[in-house]
Amino acid sequence: MTAQGNNLDPWYHHYADRTANLSASEVRALFAVASRPEVVSLAGGMPFVSALPQDRVGDTLDRVMRERGSVALQYGSGQGDPRLREQILEVMALEGIRGSADDVVVTTGSQHALELITKLFINPGDVVIAEGPSYVTAMVVFRSFQAQIEHADMDEFGLIPEALRRKIASLKADGKRIKFLYTIPTFSNPAGVTLTWERRLEILEICRSNDILVLEDNPYGLLYFDAPPPHALRSVDEDGVVYLGTFSKTLAPGFRVGWALAPHAIREKLILANEAAVLSPSSFSQLVISDYLATTDWKGQIDTFRGVYRERRDAMLQALDDYLPDLSWTVPNGGFYVWLTLPDRLDSKAMLPRAVTELVAYTPGTAFYADGSGKNKIRLSFCYPTPDFIREGIRRLTKVVNGELELLDTFAGTGQLDVVRQDLKYISPPPNIN
Amino acid sequence: MTAQGNNLDPWYHHYADRTANLSASEVRALFAVASRPEVVSLAGGMPFVSALPQDRVGDTLDRVMRERGSVALQYGSGQGDPRLREQILEVMALEGIRGSADDVVVTTGSQHALELITKLFINPGDVVIAEGPSYVTAMVVFRSFQAQIEHADMDEFGLIPEALRRKIASLKADGKRIKFLYTIPTFSNPAGVTLTWERRLEILEICRSNDILVLEDNPYGLLYFDAPPPHALRSVDEDGVVYLGTFSKTLAPGFRVGWALAPHAIREKLILANEAAVLSPSSFSQLVISDYLATTDWKGQIDTFRGVYRERRDAMLQALDDYLPDLSWTVPNGGFYVWLTLPDRLDSKAMLPRAVTELVAYTPGTAFYADGSGKNKIRLSFCYPTPDFIREGIRRLTKVVNGELELLDTFAGTGQLDVVRQDLKYISPPPNIN
Repeated sequence: MTAQGNNLDPWYHHYADRTANLSASEVRALFAVASRPEVVSLAGGMPFVSALPQDRVGDTLDRVMRERGSVALQYGSGQGDPRLREQILEVMALEGIRGSADDVVVTTGSQHALELITKLFINPGDVVIAEGPSYVTAMVVFRSFQAQIEHADMDEFGLIPEALRRKIASLKADGKRIKFLYTIPTFSNPAGVTLTWERRLEILEICRSNDILVLEDNPYGLLYFDAPPPHALRSVDEDGVVYLGTFSKTLAPGFRVGWALAPHAIREKLILANEAAVLSPSSFSQLVISDYLATTDWKGQIDTFRGVYRERRDAMLQALDDYLPDLSWTVPNGGFYVWLTLPDRLDSKAMLPRAVTELVAYTPGTAFYADGSGKNKIRLSFCYPTPDFIREGIRRLTKVVNGELELLDTFAGTGQLDVVRQDLKYISPPPNIN
Repeated sequence: MTAQGNNLDPWYHHYADRTANLSASEVRALFAVASRPEVVSLAGGMPFVSALPQDRVGDTLDRVMRERGSVALQYGSGQGDPRLREQILEVMALEGIRGSADDVVVTTGSQHALELITKLFINPGDVVIAEGPSYVTAMVVFRSFQAQIEHADMDEFGLIPEALRRKIASLKADGKRIKFLYTIPTFSNPAGVTLTWERRLEILEICRSNDILVLEDNPYGLLYFDAPPPHALRSVDEDGVVYLGTFSKTLAPGFRVGWALAPHAIREKLILANEAAVLSPSSFSQLVISDYLATTDWKGQIDTFRGVYRERRDAMLQALDDYLPDLSWTVPNGGFYVWLTLPDRLDSKAMLPRAVTELVAYTPGTAFYADGSGKNKIRLSFCYPTPDFIREGIRRLTKVVNGELELLDTFAGTGQLDVVRQDLKYISPPPNIN
């Protein structure tokens, strides 16, 4: 019996085995800190919804209520609204995807598609291969169904085909059952890098020849800053890829509307899983998004978002250049994140209390690995704070990094480092770090 | 390997074991039929949302967008909006429940609370005891996590304590692990009956002494037609009951907002499971409901719903009295459903094609049992059609029942019944039965 709990919990011995794997992510603890107004948060991944024309959204709400109120307020289909599914095809066409609305399943954010696909495929002990680093809450989902997560390395051009090949071979040699490859090929979370076109083809071929399903998660693909990224993996392989999309970054996350485009047989099971889980996704949210897409220049709005995030990315890169020229970081061409590499001897998680003291928040690199890697990495988000705050945040981060380096220079080898760090912890964390 | 699929599905051998248990419910197939305008649907459980003041809902949407737009459009907390959780306490207080907003978790409809609780507790082979008959889509969820569903009988006063006691004893004698009792004690779906106060206390005591968690699902409790029902199970036991509530029946299902009130330790795990599944429930939906509760006479609106449904229940009972006086049925004091018993030799599922021919839809009793029981039972919904249509529906149902009885009288014992029925099937089902 491995279920978590404690003696104060009368149901301690009743939980399912999988429940032992559910734990608060490191990002979760940060949200409490990041929400304090005096903290510059370079953690979290909240889109800048204030860039939306709120009066236009208001018009849409009004129209949906007047014209389709009785549908919007009612239960809908487990697959999602038919018109919205057609419109989703138009959105995906921008990334080279051709599909049928029959194969689209609307979900409660693309996060729920991740959960449902994992529920459909993962037996305890099955392997999911994920990029290292990978999206935190995807790994939380995989673990919650008792998957074994294995990483394949990435570099500035995305997942490395040879690393994937080696990982698959070694897992197969160990008799492991690999269920899928989870990847964010475009503007990855957290690394900010994009898989090249050549590698896309190569990775699809590797997965095809090894009978491994690809789970392509693409929340950021339309938010490019320079040239458009390569087309989606799904654009070249419709039988081997489950594609996940969302309106959370191109419109707003508050509606919780995402989708999966899945091979036909999987799609059928996904609908059943969706119905079991929520009966139907919110009709109201779906009709609002459908009306918004039909009546608004939504592509123009995505251009607006691109401009906002490009400016913030530029501010972050400039600040890094100015303040931390000795470090290295990725240069994202879209999305929300920069991946920063600290000197080897620094531990970004151990350094977090100091960062909080300096009123800056970030996500430690270890959050994005299942195997404890990433100690000297940091994910920096540029999506939410204004350029000035981003610069100020990097300035504060610089103090944190330098302070930590000094601490190490002073105490390393003396055996006193943990004592000092303990003191620092005692002084600095605010009461709302949970 | 038990995973479902077929040879046309290249991923046939990749599904998790649990996926073999996911199948379309019998109710699902009916939705397609019921949506044809010429069919009087006494199937389904769609609330009559047209009874809502849509202009008031429109005002609420407008206000939320103007006053709290940037919060409504953003990600929220995995536990749900703090103000809404306080307001939910007021709603539950109407059924005698006192609790803390800290122990409320907002979910994507109460269906999703069912899914998450099941995920937290059920290992393959664990037992869930459910009333016989019980809510279809709860059983779909239990099965999807490989639970073994066992029924304890109910009568017109709800779940029978002695039946529960016997079932527990026999399961324990078989070495089974019973995880929870799932019950809809008030205006049950599908039986329409309500557990008496004395039985509530007895059943709680049985579960307590056997270390069995109670999952109390209460979507209909506030929709009483005569005297208010007994207080919720949760009102007398806060450590042993997870209570599920929803705004789907007292406001509208299109927002997909429900909740769980759970013992503290379970609540903590439920939040983590909710975050993994959807990151956060829809901020927009939550703020709309919160504003509606704060600015509208929501109790008066529930009174309006009560009046609407009371009139429909009366119409259904009157029509049954008039058309089918020889049969028996339950007399619900609230909720959406009447449970009709046909003559023993009738099979309500086999009779469905004839019903479709006669342009009336209902849900066959077998849908509500995990063990094939309920052949001569029918669930009749009075929530959605107007009183006139309800009467017309029962009139058509009478033709169906009488026609079926004639068929049996003519062909029973001749060995030709299946042939005849096959013909009938061939003639009657519309193309959109799936």
